Amino acid sequence: MRYAVLEGGKRLRPLLVLAASEAVAGSPQAALRAACAVELIHAYSLVHDDMPCMDNDVLRRGKPTVHVQFGEAGALLAGDALQALAFEMLTPQGEPAGAVDEVDPATQARLCGLLARAAGLSGMAGGQAIDLASVGSPLDSATLHEMHRRKTGALLQASVMMGVACGALPAASRCSVEAALSDYGWAIGLAFQVMDDVLDVTADSLTLGKTPGKDAAHDKPTFVSLMGLSGSQAYALHLLDRALAQLEKVHAAGYRQTAALQGLAHLLVERVR
Amino acid sequence: MRYAVLEGGKRLRPLLVLAASEAVAGSPQAALRAACAVELIHAYSLVHDDMPCMDNDVLRRGKPTVHVQFGEAGALLAGDALQALAFEMLTPQGEPAGAVDEVDPATQARLCGLLARAAGLSGMAGGQAIDLASVGSPLDSATLHEMHRRKTGALLQASVMMGVACGALPAASRCSVEAALSDYGWAIGLAFQVMDDVLDVTADSLTLGKTPGKDAAHDKPTFVSLMGLSGSQAYALHLLDRALAQLEKVHAAGYRQTAALQGLAHLLVERVR
Repeated sequence: MRYAVLEGGKRLRPLLVLAASEAVAGSPQAALRAACAVELIHAYSLVHDDMPCMDNDVLRRGKPTVHVQFGEAGALLAGDALQALAFEMLTPQGEPAGAVDEVDPATQARLCGLLARAAGLSGMAGGQAIDLASVGSPLDSATLHEMHRRKTGALLQASVMMGVACGALPAASRCSVEAALSDYGWAIGLAFQVMDDVLDVTADSLTLGKTPGKDAAHDKPTFVSLMGLSGSQAYALHLLDRALAQLEKVHAAGYRQTAALQGLAHLLVERVR
Repeated sequence: MRYAVLEGGKRLRPLLVLAASEAVAGSPQAALRAACAVELIHAYSLVHDDMPCMDNDVLRRGKPTVHVQFGEAGALLAGDALQALAFEMLTPQGEPAGAVDEVDPATQARLCGLLARAAGLSGMAGGQAIDLASVGSPLDSATLHEMHRRKTGALLQASVMMGVACGALPAASRCSVEAALSDYGWAIGLAFQVMDDVLDVTADSLTLGKTPGKDAAHDKPTFVSLMGLSGSQAYALHLLDRALAQLEKVHAAGYRQTAALQGLAHLLVERVR
């Protein structure tokens, strides 16, 4: 479990949680727990995805993958336990009321609900299942979008919404701010995947840190195969504009700490790996 | 996911949740969600345990196991999504305040925390890891107990404590009643595993519904190999007495609805499969 979590990784999802929480002046204790929990889910998904029955990858972040290092049964169990640990992280139960890292129970419940839905059938695991079923068959644009919305978008969007859940927005602005940040999360989640597909074509393996060209080799449908390279790049920029426009609304509603969310949106679309 | 959950199974863990909730006059809505959640965790663990890299079982409840029916990747994802679904089940978020199946947020958080800890490293998945590391090597009594406490005991005990969490015990009796039911859960969890080992030796495959003698064939340490057949049977009866004595305490504290918990304790120890 330590091997899978503690070395390497961009920590993108935790950064989104913390940036979103900062935007709504959320509880730092709750946000830090949410940030860890979402990264634990991400880490477990990589361990299971790398297994022989899935992508059969032997290298991850420059190290042997978990199943290569510890065996398949070890990888299966480590992934399973990492998923449980995410929910342990969100439900600190030993702390007496008033303790420094106390998180109020309603926030705990809300965070568990958001994370479970992003990780499960309607999110990540469900997206993987669509992906699994789609290899070698052409996907239309709607199905490709739906697959990626679940597979990677849901957890990125949930990262944003978990950060939002760490705050206590007043009823008057809650709906509009939540809707704007939810759409921000949707747009950057999708842009992230579009750029993944672009980089799979344009980047070299040294910069990327993994083998490029794998999607085409596996005959997987991608945004590039669907809308071409320049079309995909333009689409990613369009999504960036949309995300930034949502942050304008949040700013206009009086929540001015949106610089980190802005920076992360740029980073996602302008990244080279 | 449906295939793994909806056909067969003794539903023992849900029954424990409901019986424990009944004993403390818990919320039926919360108890039903907790009962489903704990069975989803149990079901996911069976799917993953049956996979080729674990026990490599091809039959479960008289049907082909999930990976035989749907492939290994399908089994991996179904198990992963079932674990997430358990936490979705515990955090109903669409319901407006006052809705019929509303569960108060503090109870949701408490249930998520109990379930996550029973499922993860300090519970089921951790016990599996000890089991995995112990094949072919002799275990002393303390390690065998610890392995089973985590592997099967933790989820059975958590079932009881999740039922208890659905109630609102008054502060005056909370500690003593919780402690008694926790010890009840510990004792029946252990008795369950002792009887599993006994039945693995004494039962025929038709009654058992699975292949007996597998533990000895795999050179796995068991209670029977450690304390003999009659010693194990006597130990199970001793644990039954201990569980029933705890229920006496609960009864004496004014919680009289303990008949279902009594019946389940007897059932666990006196079962033939």
